[in-house]
Amino acid sequence: MIKNYKAIVEYDGSFFYGWQRLNHKRTVQKEIEKAFKKVCSEKVKIHGSGRTDAKAHATGQVISFKIDLKVPLARMADVLNKNLPDDIYIRDIEKVSLDFHARFSAKSKRYRYKVYTTQYKKVLLNHYYCHYPYEIDIHRMVKAKAFLIGEQDFRSFTAKSSLKENTVRRIDSVEIVKKDDEIDFIIEGNGFLYKMIRTIVGNLLAVGRGQISVDEFKKIILEKDIKKAKDTVPAKGLYLEKVFY
Amino acid sequence: MIKNYKAIVEYDGSFFYGWQRLNHKRTVQKEIEKAFKKVCSEKVKIHGSGRTDAKAHATGQVISFKIDLKVPLARMADVLNKNLPDDIYIRDIEKVSLDFHARFSAKSKRYRYKVYTTQYKKVLLNHYYCHYPYEIDIHRMVKAKAFLIGEQDFRSFTAKSSLKENTVRRIDSVEIVKKDDEIDFIIEGNGFLYKMIRTIVGNLLAVGRGQISVDEFKKIILEKDIKKAKDTVPAKGLYLEKVFY
Repeated sequence: MIKNYKAIVEYDGSFFYGWQRLNHKRTVQKEIEKAFKKVCSEKVKIHGSGRTDAKAHATGQVISFKIDLKVPLARMADVLNKNLPDDIYIRDIEKVSLDFHARFSAKSKRYRYKVYTTQYKKVLLNHYYCHYPYEIDIHRMVKAKAFLIGEQDFRSFTAKSSLKENTVRRIDSVEIVKKDDEIDFIIEGNGFLYKMIRTIVGNLLAVGRGQISVDEFKKIILEKDIKKAKDTVPAKGLYLEKVFY
Repeated sequence: MIKNYKAIVEYDGSFFYGWQRLNHKRTVQKEIEKAFKKVCSEKVKIHGSGRTDAKAHATGQVISFKIDLKVPLARMADVLNKNLPDDIYIRDIEKVSLDFHARFSAKSKRYRYKVYTTQYKKVLLNHYYCHYPYEIDIHRMVKAKAFLIGEQDFRSFTAKSSLKENTVRRIDSVEIVKKDDEIDFIIEGNGFLYKMIRTIVGNLLAVGRGQISVDEFKKIILEKDIKKAKDTVPAKGLYLEKVFY
């Protein structure tokens, strides 16, 4: 009997062209669907909670899929993982009600963005952090981040291609954690526009570095003009950490 | 005028066939010599403090080289790094006396070995940790490591191919640091045999997991029989961290 399932997916995005199925490109969704096809010997459609960019990572992507499970639920993750490449891992598969959908049922999401600030490059962090070799004033960023909280139009912080959609989103929290030469940005909200987190972090860093003032940051949000926004940081520092239902 | 220089090299070993120059293989030494050739337009011989295995990393490998420097010393690292691939980085180049040699002048070395112990795999740590999904008793390992300290014959902890050389080495300290699900082994000594650190860590973990007793660990050292030793852990968790002169 066909039932509905939910699972957590972790992936190292370094060698992926993002989440979404694409012709002739290595994507996470495609690799997972391939593994399902091997295991279930039929085509299974995998729904992710949302796309992630090329090179971005996930420690808590969520998928849902409807299948007629032939192996015990407890064995399913093992069987799938044996058929998945080394940079994808599925865990915590559970049965959910038929109306659950990884994307449409999601209430909010948490992302993490990782930066290190030493002068010299740390090659071991290459694929997993943004290197931002500047002196950063955390207090300035903490002041600036307050203006992000709440429901508002975030059209300053996206890509041109997204300006036709509804650009109102709600950000619930922005945490900035500094440890030695590393800074993590942890951002939670009900949904994010294309490049929104990376542009928010890029602009917060511009504040921290003194390129723009806290007031200018506030203005960038209010003016709703993408041309005013500062840098977008690279996808390799971005992690989809948790999806809330 | 030809002078002698010393530098620190950091590399992500994931896609290298180790340190040493090899035909038809991508090695760290070969890539560095290529960069020097581009920059100095002559062949420069690079001496490393020692080899590292395929997939092993370095945060503090040391090299020495004799060249007639045409650019200011302060610019040299920048120039080299622009000609190096993304997974190698050179820093802290300094002039040293003519008799300094990265390998022969080394007094001791510090390595780090990184392990995580969760049941499930963390794909983001794939290339940088050993996954050891067992419950580990740190106190048993702390008792066992005491037997490693000092100058002794470590022939139980190497590969067959090294048994013809002198297998006496001196280990100065073994630190075991646990943080959440991660365990770091930090080992310092005057020199290490091929696979020695990885076999020591493999055997300490066997003690921690309860596969062998602390007494059996002591016996493995004393019996000097490589067939008695337990697993060698994979190179991807190994880091050359510091070389002392």
